[in-house]
Amino acid sequence: MRLTELSERSGTSTATIKYYLREGLLPSGRRISATQSEYEESHLRRLRLIRALTQVGRLPVATVREVLSNVDDTSLDQHTRIGAAVWALPHGSQPDPDGREEQDADRTAQALLKELGWGFSHAAGAASPAYRMLVGAVAALRRLGYPAAAANLLPYARAAEQVARTDLELIAGYEDAEEQIEAAVACTVLYEPVLLSLRRLAEAEESNRRFSAES
Amino acid sequence: MRLTELSERSGTSTATIKYYLREGLLPSGRRISATQSEYEESHLRRLRLIRALTQVGRLPVATVREVLSNVDDTSLDQHTRIGAAVWALPHGSQPDPDGREEQDADRTAQALLKELGWGFSHAAGAASPAYRMLVGAVAALRRLGYPAAAANLLPYARAAEQVARTDLELIAGYEDAEEQIEAAVACTVLYEPVLLSLRRLAEAEESNRRFSAES
Repeated sequence: MRLTELSERSGTSTATIKYYLREGLLPSGRRISATQSEYEESHLRRLRLIRALTQVGRLPVATVREVLSNVDDTSLDQHTRIGAAVWALPHGSQPDPDGREEQDADRTAQALLKELGWGFSHAAGAASPAYRMLVGAVAALRRLGYPAAAANLLPYARAAEQVARTDLELIAGYEDAEEQIEAAVACTVLYEPVLLSLRRLAEAEESNRRFSAES
Repeated sequence: MRLTELSERSGTSTATIKYYLREGLLPSGRRISATQSEYEESHLRRLRLIRALTQVGRLPVATVREVLSNVDDTSLDQHTRIGAAVWALPHGSQPDPDGREEQDADRTAQALLKELGWGFSHAAGAASPAYRMLVGAVAALRRLGYPAAAANLLPYARAAEQVARTDLELIAGYEDAEEQIEAAVACTVLYEPVLLSLRRLAEAEESNRRFSAES
């Protein structure tokens, strides 16, 4: 397809697409004349991933480039690539834990991963943004005096396992390897507000249910 | 306790506490002399809630004031208050859905709530920030061409129900009514990065598990 069709089908302006091409986020099309290039379905998919990361994930362009380089790292096998791309996904709003609380939070997080038997995360965990985000969150809970022991975190981890199985089912539904990895990253980011909003609605629901049961 | 003790125990500077007092986020202490006031445990708890909302939830002060006025609304019964405070909690990063996608997303969200039997949200849903956040997230998924039918969302909602039961157990562990509502709001915000980071680690774990099963 030509640039105008890529723009229409992706809902992204041609100026924005040209910007992504210049920044190296989107690979060049196949040059067919001095002024025109031909783009593939893979360009459309990549464009959707970029928009998921910038618009919903609110990641800056430099960070998107980093995420895409993980996505494109073909030196890894497929499942490690999916895991690594999600695992390395930066998160905008993690709090900076201070030193003292962070050590205790790190111990709590390690105890939790051990209890869960999450071997992959336990072995390689400490280096990942996802793990740093967990430690930061636990440190914030501790610092503010809310429950943050491994036993408190365990039910959240069990729910996360259930969500991850759903995520991987969805990802496995895509046919080719490239599509799967792009979907893994995009859906991780795009389903985050789905999950958080449903949790808030479910809390209101559950609080209401407990009230009805009492009265 | 005096201001200095409140500062030490909360890990918040006296200047910041005075700012919160001036802005009406924190109720005044009991005046004991021309220059000194006495603060209670309730001040310490309120201060923790304010820090959870500003530091982890990244809410601006004006929004925190709004959330606290819901928390303090004693015209409602306890369970409705907990539900309403969480339900009305603003969320910083919801995307703005455009008109066309939003109508479809709204229909999907309504179908989901009906399927779940979430009567509280279904009846009052459309007005809440949590519901708007869900619609915005569904619209973004649709716009970018990722799965976003009610059937795709249902497993996430089931996991959210499980999380909400854990949340309400934690909240019920607090003794008095004020503490419960403050904990409901603070833990909703503080456990969000816990849940999102655990989901990412669980995805890496699950992807790794599927790989091992195949090889």
